[in-house]
Formats: sequence, C-alpha cells, structure tokens
Amino acid sequence: MTSSPRPDGRAPDQLRAVRIERNYTKHAEGSVLVCFGDTKVLCTASIDNKAPGFLRGKGEGWVTAEYGMLPRATNTRNDREAARGKQGGRTLEIQRLIGRALRACIDRKALGERTITLDCDVLQADGGTRTAAITGAYVALCDAVAVLRARGDVTRDPILGAVAAVSVGICQGVPVLDLDYREDSTCDTDMNVVMNDGGGFIEVQGTAEGHAFRRTELDALLALAEKGIAELVALQRAALAG
Amino acid sequence: MTSSPRPDGRAPDQLRAVRIERNYTKHAEGSVLVCFGDTKVLCTASIDNKAPGFLRGKGEGWVTAEYGMLPRATNTRNDREAARGKQGGRTLEIQRLIGRALRACIDRKALGERTITLDCDVLQADGGTRTAAITGAYVALCDAVAVLRARGDVTRDPILGAVAAVSVGICQGVPVLDLDYREDSTCDTDMNVVMNDGGGFIEVQGTAEGHAFRRTELDALLALAEKGIAELVALQRAALAG
Amino acid sequence: MTSSPRPDGRAPDQLRAVRIERNYTKHAEGSVLVCFGDTKVLCTASIDNKAPGFLRGKGEGWVTAEYGMLPRATNTRNDREAARGKQGGRTLEIQRLIGRALRACIDRKALGERTITLDCDVLQADGGTRTAAITGAYVALCDAVAVLRARGDVTRDPILGAVAAVSVGICQGVPVLDLDYREDSTCDTDMNVVMNDGGGFIEVQGTAEGHAFRRTELDALLALAEKGIAELVALQRAALAG
Amino acid sequence: MTSSPRPDGRAPDQLRAVRIERNYTKHAEGSVLVCFGDTKVLCTASIDNKAPGFLRGKGEGWVTAEYGMLPRATNTRNDREAARGKQGGRTLEIQRLIGRALRACIDRKALGERTITLDCDVLQADGGTRTAAITGAYVALCDAVAVLRARGDVTRDPILGAVAAVSVGICQGVPVLDLDYREDSTCDTDMNVVMNDGGGFIEVQGTAEGHAFRRTELDALLALAEKGIAELVALQRAALAG
Amino acid sequence: MTSSPRPDGRAPDQLRAVRIERNYTKHAEGSVLVCFGDTKVLCTASIDNKAPGFLRGKGEGWVTAEYGMLPRATNTRNDREAARGKQGGRTLEIQRLIGRALRACIDRKALGERTITLDCDVLQADGGTRTAAITGAYVALCDAVAVLRARGDVTRDPILGAVAAVSVGICQGVPVLDLDYREDSTCDTDMNVVMNDGGGFIEVQGTAEGHAFRRTELDALLALAEKGIAELVALQRAALAG
Amino acid sequence: MTSSPRPDGRAPDQLRAVRIERNYTKHAEGSVLVCFGDTKVLCTASIDNKAPGFLRGKGEGWVTAEYGMLPRATNTRNDREAARGKQGGRTLEIQRLIGRALRACIDRKALGERTITLDCDVLQADGGTRTAAITGAYVALCDAVAVLRARGDVTRDPILGAVAAVSVGICQGVPVLDLDYREDSTCDTDMNVVMNDGGGFIEVQGTAEGHAFRRTELDALLALAEKGIAELVALQRAALAG
Repeated sequence: MTSSPRPDGRAPDQLRAVRIERNYTKHAEGSVLVCFGDTKVLCTASIDNKAPGFLRGKGEGWVTAEYGMLPRATNTRNDREAARGKQGGRTLEIQRLIGRALRACIDRKALGERTITLDCDVLQADGGTRTAAITGAYVALCDAVAVLRARGDVTRDPILGAVAAVSVGICQGVPVLDLDYREDSTCDTDMNVVMNDGGGFIEVQGTAEGHAFRRTELDALLALAEKGIAELVALQRAALAG
Repeated sequence: MTSSPRPDGRAPDQLRAVRIERNYTKHAEGSVLVCFGDTKVLCTASIDNKAPGFLRGKGEGWVTAEYGMLPRATNTRNDREAARGKQGGRTLEIQRLIGRALRACIDRKALGERTITLDCDVLQADGGTRTAAITGAYVALCDAVAVLRARGDVTRDPILGAVAAVSVGICQGVPVLDLDYREDSTCDTDMNVVMNDGGGFIEVQGTAEGHAFRRTELDALLALAEKGIAELVALQRAALAG
Repeated sequence: MTSSPRPDGRAPDQLRAVRIERNYTKHAEGSVLVCFGDTKVLCTASIDNKAPGFLRGKGEGWVTAEYGMLPRATNTRNDREAARGKQGGRTLEIQRLIGRALRACIDRKALGERTITLDCDVLQADGGTRTAAITGAYVALCDAVAVLRARGDVTRDPILGAVAAVSVGICQGVPVLDLDYREDSTCDTDMNVVMNDGGGFIEVQGTAEGHAFRRTELDALLALAEKGIAELVALQRAALAG
Repeated sequence: MTSSPRPDGRAPDQLRAVRIERNYTKHAEGSVLVCFGDTKVLCTASIDNKAPGFLRGKGEGWVTAEYGMLPRATNTRNDREAARGKQGGRTLEIQRLIGRALRACIDRKALGERTITLDCDVLQADGGTRTAAITGAYVALCDAVAVLRARGDVTRDPILGAVAAVSVGICQGVPVLDLDYREDSTCDTDMNVVMNDGGGFIEVQGTAEGHAFRRTELDALLALAEKGIAELVALQRAALAG
Repeated sequence: MTSSPRPDGRAPDQLRAVRIERNYTKHAEGSVLVCFGDTKVLCTASIDNKAPGFLRGKGEGWVTAEYGMLPRATNTRNDREAARGKQGGRTLEIQRLIGRALRACIDRKALGERTITLDCDVLQADGGTRTAAITGAYVALCDAVAVLRARGDVTRDPILGAVAAVSVGICQGVPVLDLDYREDSTCDTDMNVVMNDGGGFIEVQGTAEGHAFRRTELDALLALAEKGIAELVALQRAALAG
Repeated sequence: MTSSPRPDGRAPDQLRAVRIERNYTKHAEGSVLVCFGDTKVLCTASIDNKAPGFLRGKGEGWVTAEYGMLPRATNTRNDREAARGKQGGRTLEIQRLIGRALRACIDRKALGERTITLDCDVLQADGGTRTAAITGAYVALCDAVAVLRARGDVTRDPILGAVAAVSVGICQGVPVLDLDYREDSTCDTDMNVVMNDGGGFIEVQGTAEGHAFRRTELDALLALAEKGIAELVALQRAALAG
C-alpha cells in the first residue's frame, strides 16, 4: 500500500485505534467500553434467568440486543427516542443485526433457559457504531457467560467462537477499511461485514445508494473486511486474556 | 444442472413463475400486482407534488416506500400493525430497503420537487416478499413517471435504469435461486440481492443465523443472483412494453 | 322506474355489478374477494382455537372483525394507519359494525371456545366499502365454518342465517340503492342497512350531515334496502353453492 | 298506555327526569350539566378563533366534539383512556356522532372562521350518555354563540334550529323510551335517534346484536323517539329562556 | 394580621372557602367533591380485590392515584390527554404525589391484598388542584375503607391517621396560604405541603423558578402550612362525621 | 461528628468523592461526566439557535433538560424507555426538576432567542442521580455559554450564579448527607435540595413515604444540605477554573 487519501492519514487497510475496556460499569454481568477511534460504545450484558415466551419449556436460551445513541453522541443533537415515543427504523435495524450476529456464536442449548440482553449505547459517534457494538458486545457476552460458569449455572461453554464486525467502503475509488464519519458520509458504497474467528461470514450488508458497485469492487471489500476482522478478533482475545 | 432437491421440483437456478400485472387498481398513478409463485404483492406508486421537508427548495425530488402485509397473507394470522400501534422492526427494515433500492434508479434532479411513494402490500406471502416488492415497485414507478411525462411535469426522463431483486440461499448444501417459504425457513443462509440492469450491485444482504458461509458459497450465490436478476429485468421490460 | 339521474346510468333501485370470488388467497380458512362495482374488498376468515379472555371457560366462541384500507385504495393517498401509529375513528367504527353484524348470524355456543377473525381489507374503494365488507365477510365466515365442520371441531352448524348489507341514500331528491363514491360524496342523506335473510334488521345507520330527512324518505330508503339485500343474499347463496 | 314493566316504574313512553343546568363551571363560553335520570354529563363549549386546517381561508367555521367518561362514572372502574394512551373505539364513535349531530344545526358560513369544541364528559353513567350529551351540548353551543354575538364576532345567528337526541329500545317485547342502564343491558334492540326541532331526522342508529327487529318494531321505535325529542326540545328551550 | 394585598381580600393566613361533599356520585365506594374556592375536584375511591402484580402473595395492599383535568377546567382549553395519547409530565408528577401522600396514612398489611384507586378529576381549576385533590381523596378513601369494614373484608382499621395538603407561597414579599390561580401565576415561590393530623410532614415541595428563597421565608411558609392543614383536618373530620 | 453508622463509613455530613470531568465527549458544546461516588452521569449541553415555539419573537431564550438512564445503569436491568414507547413518570419528574433548577441560574434575555438542552444520562446509578445531574449540568451549561461568548453570540453573561444539588435523609434516626443507593432504599425520609451559590433555595423536595418527619428533623436536613451544596459549588468552581 502507498500513501493514503484518507482524512486521518490511515492506510486504506488500516483500522482505527481500537480499545476494548472491560468492567467499565459495575452492575452488569459484562460491561465493555469499545472504542474504534472516536466512536465509543458502552456494551453491557445482562443475564435474565428466563427464556423469552416463544422458547419457554424448550430447553434453550436466547441472546438479544438493544441499541441506543445518546442524543448528543453526534455532531448535531438528535431527538431522544424515549421522548419521541418510538425507536426509529435505523435503531431497530441495527439492534436486530447485533442480536443475529451474537446469536451466531452461541450454543443456545448449552446456554439453557435464560436470556442474555446486550445493550449497546453509543456515547460518542464517529462512524461504524454498529460494527464497534458487535465487536464489543462479544466481549461483554463472554464476561457474562464466565459469570454463569463461575456460578455453575452452565456446564458446557455456550460460546461457539468469536464474532467481530467491521465496515468497509469505496471512497474516491479506493477500497478502505473501518470508515470514520467523514468517510462514511462521502463514500458511494458502504458495507458492514460480520465474521467469526473461523473466517466464516455471518452477515454481509452492502449498500450503494449512489452508484452501483461492480463485482470486482465487492471482492476487494470482502478481502479488506477479512483482514480487519482477523485483527479485531486478536484484540478481543487480548482483552479477554487481560 | 441435474435433478433438483427443491420442494417444488425447480432447478436450483430457476425462478418461480413470475407475473407482472400493470393497472391492477385504478386510482394510483402506477399499480402493479407482482407474483413470484404464490407470493403476491400489490405495488402502487403515488405522486405527491411536494418534496419532503428536508428537500424543500433544493430542486430535487424523493422516492420513498412503505411495506405492509395483510394479517392473513401468511399461514398463521399476524396481528395487524395498525391495531398494535406500530410497525415492527422487520417492516421498517424492509421498507427502508425498498426505498433505497428504488432511489438508486432515479435522477432526483430530473424528478423535480415531488415525492413518489411506493406502497408495497403483500396480499399473499410465500417467501421473497421484499424482492418481489422491489421488482414490482420498479414497474409501478415507471408507470407513475410516464404520467408525469404525459402531463409535461418532467422534461428529462428521471429513470436511470431498471432495478430488480431476488433472493438466493444455500439449502442442504446447494445454492438455489428465489427461495419459497419452505426453503427460506429451512436454509442456513439467505441473501437478498438488488441489482440494476447494467449488472451493478445496489444492495447485498446476506445472513447466516445458523452456520457461517464460506467465501466460495458467497461467490456461488452472487452468480445465481446475477442470472436471476437478468431474467427479472427482461420480464419487467416485457411488462412495460405490453 | 323511469330513466335514472345516476352518474353510471343505473336505475335508482339497481345494485352495481356484484362479484363474490371465493378462495382468493390460499392460507386463510375463508378468503373472499367481494366487488360492488369498483369497490373491491378482500375478506379473510381466520380460525383461532381460543376464545378471547372475557369468554374463557364460558363454553362460547366469538367473531370479531378488523378493517383496513390500502393507502392508495382511494383517489388520493391516505396515510398508512400502521405508520401513523393508530387506527382512526372511522376505521374503528367500521370494524365494530362489521363485527356486530357477523355476530348476529352466529350461534356462539355452537361455535365453541374459539375465535374467528374477519379481516376486511379494501384494495380499491369506490363507495360502500363497509357494506361490501359485511356481505363478503359472511361468505368467508361460512367457508371457515365449513373447515371446522370438516375437521369435526363443531357438530351443530353455528350459522344461524345469512347477513348482508347495502347503502341507500337520497341524491337530488331521489332515493337510490348502493351508492358509488360520486353519489356518496354529493348526497344529503346516507344510510347503511344490515339485514338477515329472514328480512330482519340488524343495523340501521342513517346520517344527514346536510339537510335532515323526513319520515317518508326514511321509509323509502328502508324499502330500497330490503330489495337490495334480498338480491345480495341470493348472490351469496349462489357463490356458496358454486 | 297501561302499567309498565320498566324497572323504575316509568311508562314506556316516558322520559327520565331531565335537568339542564347552565353555567355549571365558570371558564367555558358554554357550560351545561345535563342529567337524564342518574346519567350526568358535563358539556362545555369552547371557542377558538381559528378554523381547523382543512377549512383555513374558506370563510367557514367548524363544530367538533370530544367525549370522555371519568373512570368511576360506571359501576365498575374503567381504565383511564389517557393512561392507556388511546381513546377506545366506543369513545371515538360517540364523539364523531356528537360532532355530526351538532354540525347539523349550524350555519358554518355564519359562524365564520372559528372552531367551537364541545367537550362532553360523563360524571355519572346510567345509560344514554351519548343522547344526553347531544341534548346538553346543544344548549352549551347556544351559550357560546350568544357570547360571540355579544362580542359582535358574528352578525347573523349561526344556529339553524335545535337538536336533541334520545334512545329507544325494545325490552321484553315492549318499545320503550330513554333506556336506563339496566334496560340497555338487557334489551335486544337499541336505537339512538337525533332529530331537529322541525321533526327532521339527523341520525338514526339502530342495533340488534341479539335478535333482528322487524319493520313494524322499527316504526314503533321511531314514533317513540319523535315524542321524546319533542319534549327534550321544549326542555332545552325552557333552559335557554331561564 | 392586618389588611391583605390578596386579590380576593383574604387575610394572608386565610384558606379559601372549603367544601367537602360526600357521595357526590353513586357508583364509587367513596365519592367526594372537594372545593377550595373555585377549584373543584371530584375524588372517587374504587376498591379492586386484587393487589398489583409486584405485591401478589405478600399479604399487603396498595393505594394508588390517577389525576386528570377536564379540557375546559381552565381558562383556556387544554388538549385532552386521552386524545393526545399520553399523560403529560405535570399529570404524572401530580398523581405520583397524591399516591405517595395517601399511602402514608394507610397500614397496607391491615388493608390486605387489594388495591384502592383514587381518581382525582378537576372539574374546575383555580389554583391548588393537587392540594385539594389530596385533601378530598383522604375523605373518599375513608368512605371506601368504611365499605370494606361494613363488608367484613378488613378487621383492623387500615387508616393510620388523616392526611391533608395546602399550598403556600410568597406574593409581593408576603407569605400567603392557599393560593388561587391569580396568586399562583404571579408569585415567585410556591410550596405544596402535605401533613398528617399528628403534625408530621409527609411531603414538602418548594419551587423558586424566579428568585431563590431564604431560609427565613421557608420557615414562615412552613408555619402557614401547619396552620392551614390543621384547619383542613378539622374540616375533613366534620365531613366524615356528617 | 463522631463515628458514623453509614455503610461506607462516611461521616453523616460528608459528601461522597465527587469528580467533575469536562470535555468528556467531543461533539457537544458542553460535556461533563459527573461522579458522586459510584453514581456517574454524563451531562451534555447542546445549543440550538432557535427559541421554543412559545417564546418565538419575545427576545428570550430557554434552558431545558432531558434525563435518561441506560438500561443496565442499575443493579437489575430496567426496560429501555425508547423500546417501551414512553418515558416513565419518574423520568419526566426528574427532567422537569433539572430544567427548572438550571433555568433559575440563567438570565433568559441575555441568552437571546436560543435553546440550550441539557441531556443528563446516567451511565451508572448508586443513588442521587438527579442531584449529580443538576450539579454536573451546571458546569456543562457554563461551557456552552462560554462557546456562545467566544462566538460573540451573547454580549452579557447570561449566567446569574451557580446552582448545585444534593440529597439528604434520615437513616436510622441520623440525618445524613448525599445518600448512596443502600441508604436511599432503607431511609424513611429523603429530601433533594437545590440551592444557588448565594445560599438561596431553588427547590426543596422532601418525601416521607414511611414515617412522617418532624419540623426539627426538617431543620437538621436543610442545614446539612446547605453545608454540602457549599462544598459542591466550590468543586464546580475548581472544575471550571481547571
């Protein structure tokens, strides 16, 4: 790679500085502050010893997610969703994505009849909040599962493997990894990729509201995502070992 | 391709019988009943001679979509969203997708300060309602634009090209095109692909809630989608010529 | 009757062309498309093997209705009720009327502890949607009851008799039957009448927002309604025999 | 008429004791407590010097109504609609009826571009709350119009004539006037009739949820209503003269 | 005390004319119209023989309150909360205050597993609606408890003592008791005080949106409140003896 | 003061460790993380260059507040208010209190026609969230006003003086300052006091849901609050000087 056209001088295939801070707050069974550059998301994992209604009596558990953004996490203030009386479409879409992603790494039988809720609240936004949330929520989920194991509530480890996510996009013709807000708002194509630590794809969501992307561009983006996620998985592992 | 394991005997790369019926209802500027097998979606296009608030005075128009499902479009009755008092996350996610897809084929300057709303209402569901909706909504949008042209309200054609969508997935290890409900509910991987008639990708949304998919599987799915969408674009063209 | 002042040339006591098409969609236990001229309503009957809460353990069932209109069923687009977050007063009023009308023809003891929900969704509106809905919902209800009988879930026939409905009004001084939209919006008096096949009245709802109507006018309207409903009952019978 | 089977000993064609008390509260331009026996409804008329949006600039005014019931106006407590977050179907249906009834006695051009809102709140319910509300709201409306005339805001009297309402029904085979709650809940047929002081019908709403009613029964009910409303109009006139 | 600067000529430490009328409506177990001058609040107490969910099986009961204001209880019409679809912050704050105040005088074990709901609906407002509501609701609660005792549903008296409330404030530098609307809207400081008949404080809520108040002013206000509440308790006692 | 019965060993008149960290997030004009022991609240101040509707054209500005709690800020997870579709009564009550408190230190004419919104979001709760929020929001407000002054948008300083808040209560008979959650949930009496830096009271809210408090207890609590708020004001000053 040569010199980069990116606003912050990163190489096209370079992640932002990533920080994963465990035990950020004290009440939750898992509590992780994850930072992708200036994007900061607090991910907590809460254990509820009940399965949701549609799973009662089936001997399996559930993992679900909720997503929120503080009103002034962004450059201009957004209305508080609680005050408007409903969650917007973007919020629902993101929290559905986070929930699906984390369920992909859980053995629900091994979890047993309980629910783990992952609350991902954006304290500061600078692009990539959903991918940071998935990456941090995985660590919070591991901490909550460790609590269950320590309590003897589960016998087999319900974690099937790691899950992480990153955004990729094409900015001024160059495929780049982990877009910040300035890049995100000017690029033609934006893709969010969720993968596991075995190199398998869990979600691929690419959007071209401006110009359509070619198959070769798609291939380049997927390759970038694979590289970035491998690095994120290593950072998750280091944080969990710390 | 050899003999197919598909429940309805289709070849893996075969679309269901597709029907696109224009002028299905009489009031809307565009009104299309689109059928992908037993999936039936009524797509209407309504012209409003006002741009939405965030575009007032900017000399451009907007295309937006709403999606709904009749309570008994499905095998068991779903609660009516109007009665529950809100649209669910799945509904919002789908209508945002349809809106983005159709905006990708419109020159908003050429449309001028007006809004075209695409209402996609599922009369009968058998898998693939969102891809049928996008494919039918494009035809309804063309009919509405023809009304604008006939009225002399637009001078340049605001349609940049065709847009169509199809689902693909991996069922029992075989990549298949245009899944019906039985396939959709048993497959591990499901992907919705939106493309234009120039072979460009507009949206790629792949999900593996069960087992993660490999890059080679992804490649096979994208190839199937390209084939299917080329056929759908030809069917749209035939319907519009009819 | 002599030459008619009606916009479509009908005689004052003449119904529009009425069509009752059974099995219009495939999932519901009863599914009927009913057309009164250009008014088209899809009526589905859904069986739920639970009585509503207020009837649990009482050995009787319930019949209820919900009504909706596709946003572009009308000449100008109406906001989608699911998007606005509530059903309007007109919708609630109509669905309460449909429910009462259909309960009037059911022996709730014979139905047993179950609920039949009649969803009446207007695909295209041209006046008289509520009377078309009642007339079609009766046929859908009969089909659902036939399913129950075929399954052996009910032993006695819970249908007490037929129910149908029609609108009548006074337009330019002339009492007319089955008003279309143009008539409905210009007439001074509008009355919806629901009757059973024994000539008994189930609902009479007459409104004079403009000038009040005299007793003699009321008598003429009721006579017209009796004639029209007798014809509708014959059409229902033919459809059910078909 | 001979001896009555009515629970309170009234003759079949006898109204309950009716009381119309003006200036019941001090802030509203019209404020009337109307009692039909133990049914007590507070009707206030509020003037707003703006027409509603759909009438702006058309030189006419509007009359509208809202209806509510205190939670313990009834024998068992009902949930407060403000706490449940929406008005029920019955409430919306009744307030639409009250609004239509009162608009029938108003010359909207003479009223000018303003809105009069009639709030009808049931303090105590014992059957017939909607008919008492209409009867009382007419008097409150007259008082509000008198305020407008005193201020010189209207020059022509916008009141076209009086409006009153009463319920009639068939209880144990006998047509009776002005049903109280015990009668209302046991009768087969219930009809609400709104008339003007010229003997014209404004609304006729008859319902037979139990057994259907014959034409001769309908005729008897309408005759009873005509008698009762003539008496109510006289009581309104006396109250306004008081 | 010498001549008063108060708009209605009262002495600074003088209550308005207070009226407490029991059995104002007939259905509720307790029904009290309380008037503090022109402020009129209807307080009903409704017995429900179920404890709320969070107390099931704990052998104790609950007392809760709801507050509402008729739309035209005030000088200009307020939107109906049921129509807006939610209770405002002021309403929720007041009903929480009333509930806490009344729970302070109840032995919840003696009440047993039941709920008493106090509905406080303002028919006419002229300042001090929440303090009038608390004062009246206490009397309604006593009447409901008397019903429970007469039925033999409770054996020990669950009423621990009387509760009453009054507002105090500083108007033009003078501490005054029981502010009416004109005073309330022009005073700098406003305090609502709830006390029991033993001279104990249950709630003290003082607000200075304009200028802050000194400790000496606070002392003077508390002394005024003590005097006023002693008088209110005597009036409650007289009403209950009546 | 002698040895303390407090769970954390503090003296009865001792604040928890208080931390006020400015510029905690980067987008808001003021952003303060305030900690009272383990209670952590993020307070942001957002400038909007429009006054709210009711002040348009009056030449004054407004300060308002919103309050929220992350779902797992507490020991057991609370439902997300955005997901439930409304803010609870406690939330509305607290945000109204914060807004009034901060408006008490602002010269709204000097602020000009703009709105400053203070968002107070609890990241971790351990008692006293509303008093921490007020104390931190004041610092965020000062930072936002400094932005306005630096931009030349205001010429006179609109800050009239400092505002801070603290809770006091009686635990096991001892008046104590700045209660943590364990104390808060076991004390009989709880009072929140808001004062300015001139020793004036802005809000006094004392509640005794258990046993009523005597005047002497109230006096002791107010003295404690005065001491604590003087210390908080000094900490605010130090933070702003930092």
